[in-house]
Amino acid sequence: MTEDSLVAALRAIVEAPAAGSGMPKRIVLGIGDDAAVWQPSRSHLSVVSTDALVDGVHFLATMDPRAVGHRAMAANLSDIAAMGATPVLATVALGVAPGTSEDWILECYRGLAGLAAEFEAYVVGGDIVRTPAITLAITVVGEVSRTRLKRRDGGRAGDVLAVTGALGASRAGLELALGRASADGELAAAARAAFATPRPRVREGRYLAASAHVHAMMDSSDGLSTDVGRLARASGCGAALAFVPIHPAALAVAPSAGDDPRAYALDGGEDFELFVAVSARGFTHLAARFEAHFGKPLIPIGHLEERPGLRLTDQAEPGGRELIPAGWDHLRT
Amino acid sequence: MTEDSLVAALRAIVEAPAAGSGMPKRIVLGIGDDAAVWQPSRSHLSVVSTDALVDGVHFLATMDPRAVGHRAMAANLSDIAAMGATPVLATVALGVAPGTSEDWILECYRGLAGLAAEFEAYVVGGDIVRTPAITLAITVVGEVSRTRLKRRDGGRAGDVLAVTGALGASRAGLELALGRASADGELAAAARAAFATPRPRVREGRYLAASAHVHAMMDSSDGLSTDVGRLARASGCGAALAFVPIHPAALAVAPSAGDDPRAYALDGGEDFELFVAVSARGFTHLAARFEAHFGKPLIPIGHLEERPGLRLTDQAEPGGRELIPAGWDHLRT
Repeated sequence: MTEDSLVAALRAIVEAPAAGSGMPKRIVLGIGDDAAVWQPSRSHLSVVSTDALVDGVHFLATMDPRAVGHRAMAANLSDIAAMGATPVLATVALGVAPGTSEDWILECYRGLAGLAAEFEAYVVGGDIVRTPAITLAITVVGEVSRTRLKRRDGGRAGDVLAVTGALGASRAGLELALGRASADGELAAAARAAFATPRPRVREGRYLAASAHVHAMMDSSDGLSTDVGRLARASGCGAALAFVPIHPAALAVAPSAGDDPRAYALDGGEDFELFVAVSARGFTHLAARFEAHFGKPLIPIGHLEERPGLRLTDQAEPGGRELIPAGWDHLRT
Repeated sequence: MTEDSLVAALRAIVEAPAAGSGMPKRIVLGIGDDAAVWQPSRSHLSVVSTDALVDGVHFLATMDPRAVGHRAMAANLSDIAAMGATPVLATVALGVAPGTSEDWILECYRGLAGLAAEFEAYVVGGDIVRTPAITLAITVVGEVSRTRLKRRDGGRAGDVLAVTGALGASRAGLELALGRASADGELAAAARAAFATPRPRVREGRYLAASAHVHAMMDSSDGLSTDVGRLARASGCGAALAFVPIHPAALAVAPSAGDDPRAYALDGGEDFELFVAVSARGFTHLAARFEAHFGKPLIPIGHLEERPGLRLTDQAEPGGRELIPAGWDHLRT
C-alpha cells in the first residue's frame, strides 16, 4: 500500500455518500490537493472543533473499525452541535499502527464518512501517518448564524439545567466491551451501541439554538459532574443538580460490574448528549415543544445558582452535598 | 496537571502574541468552549489543511520542544501557502506520551503559536490526549480569493517548473540530528535550522498566487521527485527536470554521511519550498519581479510536457533518464 493508492481509495469512500447528487457545490476542492477549499456561508459564522481519540484510551482496536470511525466523528459532531451549529466538512488525521491493515483503514473511513454524511458533512482531507497506537484526530468545520450561536458562558443564576437524554449508557457499553461487566438482552445491546456508535445530537442542538431562552449549551462528553461544573463556572455561577437521569442501560449493566449506575451517569462521560441552561420563564414551553418535535423529553436536572460550586440535592441531606467532579480528564494521572 | 489547568496555561500562550492588539476581531471565540468561532471573509473562499507529525518519524522528542511545535505548524502553513491562501487560525490535537512534562507541552505550544502569529494566524482550540508517542495533528484554516486559488492540477504542457528555494537542507539537518552525518560551521547550522525550524513560504505563495501566469502550485514537502510527479500527473502531463537546485547545506553535509547531496534535494522532502508551473511566456517577467521583491531567485528547474512520466535531463544522456519517485511516502514499508 502506498500513500497515493490509499488516498485514492479513501477519496472514493468519502465521496460515495454524495454519489447521487455529487459533492455539495460549496465544496470547491476535496481530497487530493495541498488543502481543501470551500465557499463559506456569507451570512453565518464558521465554527471549528478538533478531537483526538487513541486506541486503548477512547476506543479499542478490537472494536469494529466502522465503529471506531463512527465514534471519532461523533465526538467532533457533538462539539459542533453544542454550539448550535450545522457541520459542513471534516478533515481526518489518522495514525495507523504497525499491524493496521488497509481494510481496517478503509472500514474506519466508511464509519466516519458515513456518519458525517448523515448530517450532510463531508470529509475533504487529512493526513495518514504511522504511530505506535491507532490515533484519530478529526477536525470538523460548521456554521451558525450569529444570533443562534450558543456558548457555555451565557448561563444565568436561576436558569434551568436540562439534558437531551439520560446518561451513563456509554460507560456501561465500555464496561461490557472490556469484559468487566456482563449482561444480555435489549439494554445490554443499547449500552454497546451507545459506546460503539453514539448519536451526536446535531438536530437537537440546532433546534435548541433557535430559542432565545437557551442561554448556554455544551455537550456532556466528559461526564455530567465535570461538564456542568465547567458551564456553571464559565457563566460565573454555581449549580445545584436535583435529578441525575440514569440511562436504563446503565441501571441494567452496572450491578454486574459491582458499580453504582449513578456514577456512570455522573462521571462516565462520552454520552454526547447536550445540556442547556434555559431561562426559568421559558423552560416549560421549550420542553413541551422539544418533546413534541423529537418524541423524547428535554430532561430538567437542576438549576444554576449564584452560590459557586456544584451541589447534588437529589437526596435527603439538607442543602445537598458537594459534588466532586470525577468525569473524564484526559491528563489526570 | 489537570486538563482544565493546562488548557488555561495554553490559552495564555496562544493569546500572548495578540496581547498588544488583542485577538483579531474576526476570532469570535477561541480556546475554552466546545468549538472555536470566527467570521469568515465574505469575499473569499476558505481553505483547510491537516498534517500530523509523530515522534521518531517526523521529529525527535530530544529536539527542542519549541522546534517541534514550530516544525509541525510550518508543515501546515506550507500547505495553506501552496494554495495561495493566507492562514487565519489553527487547531492543535496534541498526543502526549507518558514521560512528557508540562513544560515540554508549554514550550511546544510557544513554538507553534509563535510561528502562526508571525503570519497573523492564531491557535483557537484543539485537544490533548495521552498517546504512546508524542503526536501533533494540526489543522490550519486560511482564506483565498477565488481568482487567486492555485490548485495542483492547472499545469499545462510547456509550462516552466520553478521552485522558491534550493532543496535538501532539511534532510541534511535530519542526518545531523540523528548523528549519521557530522559537520560544523555556518552551513551545518543552516541545515540544522532547515530541519528544526523550517520557514513556510506563506508570503511567496501569496505573491505567486497573484499572477495569472502561475497555473499550478504545491509545496515540496514529500521530496521533489515525488511531488513534481504528483503535480504533473494531476495536470495530465509529464515533467522533465533539467536542473536540481541543491542547497549548499546539503552539499556540505551529505558527504560526511556517505550520501549523494543530489538525493537529499530530490528525495529528502520537508523543505517546504513551493514549486509552480508558470506559462513559458510569463516566466521571465515573473521571475524578475519575484527576485526584486524577495531578494532571492525563483529557480527554474524544468518544464511540463505532454509525454507522461518524469524525466531527469540534467546530465548528458540523450533524452534524459526516468526519475523514480523516492521521496517521502508515509506508508511505504
